[in-house]
Amino acid sequence: MKKNYLLSPGPTPVPERVLLAMAQPVIHHRTPQFSALFRVCLEKLKPIFGTKNDVIILSSSGTGAMEAAVCNCFSKGEKVLVVNSGKFGERWGQISESFGLNVVWMNIGWGNAADPGEIKKTLDADPDIKGVLMQATESSTTVKHPVKEIAAITKSRDVMLVVDGITGVGVFKIPMDDWGIDVMVGGSQKAFMMPPGLAFIALSKRAWEKADKAKNSRFYFDLKKEKKNLAKDTTSYTAPVSLVYGLSEALKMMEEESLPKLYERQARTAKAARAGCAALNLKPVTQSPSEAMTGVFLPSEIDGARFVKALRDSFGITFAGGQDQWKGKIIRIAQLGYIGDFDIVIAMSAIEMALDGFGVPVKFGSGVGAAQAVLRGGFEV
Amino acid sequence: MKKNYLLSPGPTPVPERVLLAMAQPVIHHRTPQFSALFRVCLEKLKPIFGTKNDVIILSSSGTGAMEAAVCNCFSKGEKVLVVNSGKFGERWGQISESFGLNVVWMNIGWGNAADPGEIKKTLDADPDIKGVLMQATESSTTVKHPVKEIAAITKSRDVMLVVDGITGVGVFKIPMDDWGIDVMVGGSQKAFMMPPGLAFIALSKRAWEKADKAKNSRFYFDLKKEKKNLAKDTTSYTAPVSLVYGLSEALKMMEEESLPKLYERQARTAKAARAGCAALNLKPVTQSPSEAMTGVFLPSEIDGARFVKALRDSFGITFAGGQDQWKGKIIRIAQLGYIGDFDIVIAMSAIEMALDGFGVPVKFGSGVGAAQAVLRGGFEV
Repeated sequence: MKKNYLLSPGPTPVPERVLLAMAQPVIHHRTPQFSALFRVCLEKLKPIFGTKNDVIILSSSGTGAMEAAVCNCFSKGEKVLVVNSGKFGERWGQISESFGLNVVWMNIGWGNAADPGEIKKTLDADPDIKGVLMQATESSTTVKHPVKEIAAITKSRDVMLVVDGITGVGVFKIPMDDWGIDVMVGGSQKAFMMPPGLAFIALSKRAWEKADKAKNSRFYFDLKKEKKNLAKDTTSYTAPVSLVYGLSEALKMMEEESLPKLYERQARTAKAARAGCAALNLKPVTQSPSEAMTGVFLPSEIDGARFVKALRDSFGITFAGGQDQWKGKIIRIAQLGYIGDFDIVIAMSAIEMALDGFGVPVKFGSGVGAAQAVLRGGFEV
Repeated sequence: MKKNYLLSPGPTPVPERVLLAMAQPVIHHRTPQFSALFRVCLEKLKPIFGTKNDVIILSSSGTGAMEAAVCNCFSKGEKVLVVNSGKFGERWGQISESFGLNVVWMNIGWGNAADPGEIKKTLDADPDIKGVLMQATESSTTVKHPVKEIAAITKSRDVMLVVDGITGVGVFKIPMDDWGIDVMVGGSQKAFMMPPGLAFIALSKRAWEKADKAKNSRFYFDLKKEKKNLAKDTTSYTAPVSLVYGLSEALKMMEEESLPKLYERQARTAKAARAGCAALNLKPVTQSPSEAMTGVFLPSEIDGARFVKALRDSFGITFAGGQDQWKGKIIRIAQLGYIGDFDIVIAMSAIEMALDGFGVPVKFGSGVGAAQAVLRGGFEV
């Protein structure tokens, strides 16, 4: 018998309650029964996005909602600033260019967080820039960007702040309305403890006004049409009924834990993972780590792809390795979603044993112990 | 206790085996384990589409794959002929116009099937038309269109035949390669016995060549990118893992029954439903009915919306009513997917009792009996 553990930053593990909710018989999506279920989900998403506006549920991966942000809120030829510090920042730029936007790339290098001062300078110098597109967490580098500080700059100008919060919403506080974020995107397979297949997107009042005027090709991701249907508790096209069943259970669990507790747990487990890795002399990939996951460089003599593979196939634990330029060099330990304190104990313990297996001298328990010293604070006894 | 029955043409009922398959723990989508599962699905889809080419799996509703067909295979300004005989024909036109195509509308009226002769005449008269977009079954009217005859016209010309087979693939034989269909679209929540959330699309060799040259805005639905990733047994973006688990089980069930048996069952149950309705003097909505579902006009004194609602809320049986211009006038009884012979007995029996409830004189058992006389042929004893 080998027990398998999913400790990757997306998909994240799905609680049994959610899996069982999805196993309910399918109901028709144009019924009062489905509408009631859907409405509950719509309402419960709002506090997590920190908005009084609608949060739209799309049947797609998170990338679909990123496309929806671009093709609904901007027109061909419009100039936008893309904060590019990794694979997903790059994706904002690629989508924008696919839809004919004029992209100003702010390439700040992997591992770095955006500098609000630089963004202000760029916007001051070029008033044609009508949007800033960025991540809450750049998953490929584990970097948390200063969204609040950047929103403080964009909200007083004619510049829309579009945040990919796929790795962020539900992990830490990121209140759209309070901070002045114009568009925020989320995905089911992250903090929402769900399988992949649903994406979320919310727009501010001024983003909806801009969407009224924006001209770009769109049909499946037409947000104005979705908003109209959502007011009638339904979707434009056939709703992914089983996933919505799952979502309703997952949102109930998030409500039971409460947002403050949930943010606290993820911050604690992240701090514990960082402490554990430090005790093992694994160098962090960034000085601006997100609570969603912990990324560290592996010792240079280790082939990271083989290391992650050995952890999965021999120890039964799925971590994420590096992507693109960090392929084979780093390991990412997830803390978002249905990942508890003892999952961090498992993670550190497995990494210690795998390091030993790859010939790196390790004192067993040293990483685990350092993590425990932090996790301890989460228990009342 | 009330047992509920889903007899709508999409979503269709999902077998317990498929629901349980979806309840398996989520695995990461970039693993050999997922790739193996995905490859099995990809291979099993091919005979159902009747093609040796790739069938691409998208995370979206069927409409997403319709959009993919349009934005990958056609360029802005290109002229296409849209066969419009209902809500979904209309959708082809709307999507095409959203992407800047020049749409020639062939409006043939609700309930009518396309006339290959008329299509030939239109194509002869206007050689600028580079595509014909149509349905295999127009779900809103239950009409089956003569795809084979139309393919015989388009395949020898520079005209792409794009078929929405969402209600068709897996219901009856519709072999892409043999007939010369260029693009065919499917959806999980129909004959595939799955919840909504997956869409399928396959392209002929010449459709892929056209996709190489087509210029239109796309990113999430970029089929060339999907094809490249599919060759590596993976998807461009996070795959909807749980739905793919379900699909793999559903395809196994389809294989166990075998395609000929499955087509035979759906043809038999459709014939039985038509016979049952005829015995109840319910007038068919079309002379070209699909095997996927049976549509009949309700007696004019009945408010169809209330009738369908009563069947759902009082009898526990979800049928589909009419859409748009047929709202409140018709009822549609599904035969596609996980719907067996006795579901038709249930359907006829419920309709008889509901008619009685709405004051229409009915001889109980007359519709059921007429259906049984057809269903009987499906049993060996």
